[in-house]
Amino acid sequence: MTASQALICKGCWQNMRVPIALRGPLSVPFRVVGLRPSRMNPNLCTFCELMFKRIMKATKITVDATILFADLRAYTSLSQSLSPAEMGSVLDIFYDECAAAIWAFDGLLNKTIGDAVMAVFNFPIKQADHARQAVLAGRDLQRRVAARRDELKALLGESGGELGVGVGIDCGELSFGEFGRSHKDLTAIGTVVNTAARAQAAATPGEILVTEAVYTRARADLDGSTSKPYTLKGFEHPVPLYAA
Amino acid sequence: MTASQALICKGCWQNMRVPIALRGPLSVPFRVVGLRPSRMNPNLCTFCELMFKRIMKATKITVDATILFADLRAYTSLSQSLSPAEMGSVLDIFYDECAAAIWAFDGLLNKTIGDAVMAVFNFPIKQADHARQAVLAGRDLQRRVAARRDELKALLGESGGELGVGVGIDCGELSFGEFGRSHKDLTAIGTVVNTAARAQAAATPGEILVTEAVYTRARADLDGSTSKPYTLKGFEHPVPLYAA
Repeated sequence: MTASQALICKGCWQNMRVPIALRGPLSVPFRVVGLRPSRMNPNLCTFCELMFKRIMKATKITVDATILFADLRAYTSLSQSLSPAEMGSVLDIFYDECAAAIWAFDGLLNKTIGDAVMAVFNFPIKQADHARQAVLAGRDLQRRVAARRDELKALLGESGGELGVGVGIDCGELSFGEFGRSHKDLTAIGTVVNTAARAQAAATPGEILVTEAVYTRARADLDGSTSKPYTLKGFEHPVPLYAA
Repeated sequence: MTASQALICKGCWQNMRVPIALRGPLSVPFRVVGLRPSRMNPNLCTFCELMFKRIMKATKITVDATILFADLRAYTSLSQSLSPAEMGSVLDIFYDECAAAIWAFDGLLNKTIGDAVMAVFNFPIKQADHARQAVLAGRDLQRRVAARRDELKALLGESGGELGVGVGIDCGELSFGEFGRSHKDLTAIGTVVNTAARAQAAATPGEILVTEAVYTRARADLDGSTSKPYTLKGFEHPVPLYAA
């Protein structure tokens, strides 16, 4: 893909100064013991996905991080007019462009569920300016999907005009780690995750909505943006959001 | 966990008559080459997750299957009053009980995302009565979560009264396989998936709502249930749903 591929795991190097070879002949012994590039980010290894228990002696940690949600609009209605195979091709394009944009800015593509994608910035790869990196990834993602509009339109036929991506971003303290004991799931939990998801739901196709917390940290890149109050599901009071 | 654990992979045995040892001394050589119990169902192996490409020479296949969504109500508002660590404990309980119920009825716990869980029945483990198995899993799941209500209430404090699980089930032809080329994601796609998700959103805490297709196939277990029309997001016309 377009994201430059690291030769050693960025997470293990940053956190422990241990060089885990991900590619080339040096990666062979690591692969034998099960250390491979992570599906969530090809510049991390599968060990990073488990580092909580081994290194931090905890299954969950509290970190300051940024969450980005992106969602393909009109998916439910499209799924009624397209064949599953056609929807599959649409999702292939959407997931690939999301992955490329998220990885280019060192984020973790944590989840894909149907028409939505969730990414984490600042863990396991640390980024002092993670809120800004997420905003840049969101813009890159919008550009990449827009660049493939013709391909998507050909797949979608007449309904293609409606298609676009909504993005929502929030940052702050959240819980990251393994949830569930029998089915272990590596993910992020907390108000930040929910707020990012709700901001995404409020975004129109092509739009990126960020919270006050993101605006404060990435102001230099959000010059001239002013907030509007949004009524978000599950939130008692209107939440101010900025277009990025 | 409570689901009985198979000694060999049910999927490889059913589909290819190949015995892949999952547990005990015989599993050692399989583990060396990377074949382990799947996180999505401990009675399947990691090879089942990849069998499309190797066995079926395709990355996606069309199958008749049942999709179950379960969602923990009041999660967004709870996440604002609880600490991430407390929310993590709530999710540990929710995911574990969902996993136990889904696995007890040979389903695949395909996704967990925040407060929601998505399961597939009839693939890779084949079940002639998959719609019925999903209904039974949904009821088991409700019973299991209800049995841990005291524990959940202790974690949630006063707001615990609102807590409950909504379940939605639909069945029919869908596309199952790997989506995305750079970030490969094993999941199900199609109208069935969206309808199950929307039925779940319409369910009240403690309720299980199933579609006409599920009712038709699992009628013996849904005696006396009558349909009511529901307005579901993304659907032009009201959709009749049955309480199970």
